[in-house]
Amino acid sequence: MVATDKFKKTPETATFNLSAYLKERQQLCETALDQAIPIVYPEKIYEAMRYSLLAGGKRVRPILCLATCEMTGGTIEMAMPTACALEMIHTMSLIHDDLPAMDNDDYRRGKLTNHKVYGEDIAILAGDGLLAYAFEFVATQTPQNVPRDRVLQVVARLGRALGAAGLVGGQVVDLECEGKLDTSLETLNFIHNHKTAALLEACVVCGGILTGVSPEDLQRLTRYAQNIGLAFQIVDDILDITATQEQLGKTAGKDLKAQKVTYPSLWGIEESRSKAQQLVEAACAELEPFGELAQPLKAIAHFITSRNH
Amino acid sequence: MVATDKFKKTPETATFNLSAYLKERQQLCETALDQAIPIVYPEKIYEAMRYSLLAGGKRVRPILCLATCEMTGGTIEMAMPTACALEMIHTMSLIHDDLPAMDNDDYRRGKLTNHKVYGEDIAILAGDGLLAYAFEFVATQTPQNVPRDRVLQVVARLGRALGAAGLVGGQVVDLECEGKLDTSLETLNFIHNHKTAALLEACVVCGGILTGVSPEDLQRLTRYAQNIGLAFQIVDDILDITATQEQLGKTAGKDLKAQKVTYPSLWGIEESRSKAQQLVEAACAELEPFGELAQPLKAIAHFITSRNH
Repeated sequence: MVATDKFKKTPETATFNLSAYLKERQQLCETALDQAIPIVYPEKIYEAMRYSLLAGGKRVRPILCLATCEMTGGTIEMAMPTACALEMIHTMSLIHDDLPAMDNDDYRRGKLTNHKVYGEDIAILAGDGLLAYAFEFVATQTPQNVPRDRVLQVVARLGRALGAAGLVGGQVVDLECEGKLDTSLETLNFIHNHKTAALLEACVVCGGILTGVSPEDLQRLTRYAQNIGLAFQIVDDILDITATQEQLGKTAGKDLKAQKVTYPSLWGIEESRSKAQQLVEAACAELEPFGELAQPLKAIAHFITSRNH
Repeated sequence: MVATDKFKKTPETATFNLSAYLKERQQLCETALDQAIPIVYPEKIYEAMRYSLLAGGKRVRPILCLATCEMTGGTIEMAMPTACALEMIHTMSLIHDDLPAMDNDDYRRGKLTNHKVYGEDIAILAGDGLLAYAFEFVATQTPQNVPRDRVLQVVARLGRALGAAGLVGGQVVDLECEGKLDTSLETLNFIHNHKTAALLEACVVCGGILTGVSPEDLQRLTRYAQNIGLAFQIVDDILDITATQEQLGKTAGKDLKAQKVTYPSLWGIEESRSKAQQLVEAACAELEPFGELAQPLKAIAHFITSRNH
């Protein structure tokens, strides 16, 4: 979780300490997530939900939501329940994706996957529980100074990002393409727009919805998010080839093993790196109207392409 | 879907044609559910979601929601999105419960279960998709004449009914008790309060939330729902013993096979029938203040104990 040298040299963010910013926000998210789900009877399901939710991810999604809310004039308190819900939804999608009937993965974030610890039945239910709780949490915990219609818009966006028009739809096409080496760029884009970018987009857009930004600003936020979403996936594909399992905290090289078409397999590694960089620059350009306040979101965009795990 | 003779003789509902009422409401629900999920790319996931959602259940849950909304001064239009969401959540829980890692059932509502037709991976995702869409649907489709804070309360109730404090929690304890013949009545009550009654309660309570009933009336609705929820489960247990697979449309005798403790196994069949009848009467007593308008909900309560499938 340390910004690379390459990032530190970027002039526009020279005065902004991203590493300290991310560390502080990550800690806030950890505390909020930890408090969100107390353990009561039947303990096993709450433990299973907490096992994956508190497994120490980078918390990129909740941090994006908090940062957008602050950039557009809101507070951390306004966005924290939505930020937690986004991480619950992300975690739930990982638990279900890792199941034997899906990607059949044994490791995630450097730990055994949920079903390896609790069994398949509990893992399915832990995902369902996190999903249900995400919506309940937003609806009950968002402070009253956020107008209720905005909270309802957030609920709608979360549902869309997760469902057949989002994560679920992306995973379906991903499963269909496994072992097919003739997957088109169009299909690959569909998979990633839905599996990865849709939730990242929801993170950013929900941060803006909570503060009631104009439709024009919402469009800018959407384009920022779509660009970093695709960049994020390209970098993920590159890391799957170049990084070790130790660095990733999950099984490395699994795309190759599963014979999945990836951006590097279509474009090569150098071209993929260059595309990711262009996407990040386009993302940052969308934030110009927000001036100085856009510094965290711009720095996060650059961080995404420079990360090595 | 025909009321039994026993029910028709109940004097207080002599002037009310429940059979016609249920048929009409069921048709409204079928149409709304059919229109709720159009098939787009990737078709397979929408088809899988529709396969189970439109498999022709009795639609007891959405009908309860519509009936409560109308009894408390609202319209069908106000409650239909919530009613559809409740059926989506119910269907999702059935799809996941039927999975090989859970109850491992091949038949449901007289048809092959979702995973038998579409595979386990798609069945898990179809459940997730229905769940996400339920929340999105309520948030985006509830008419604007319903105040937004009420819609948000509905979202919260749906989440709670479904999550670890509801359906999911009940299923966890149910799985834990399989094969244990010393399950206590307390544990059995916990399972059914969470697996069955929680969602039925949400159906009724959400109908009242949408019209903004008083806290006192919400309490009455809650007690009505809890009573019929338990009665419903007792009758389900009895039918699992006495009905044939053809009548049920699902595998019969599976509780016995799974060595599950049930109400009839604790109390015997006659005592169980009598308890269910008492619960229905207590439920109906709660609705006295609503006068004539309570006729549909009272009739539905009686229908629950007299059904034979």
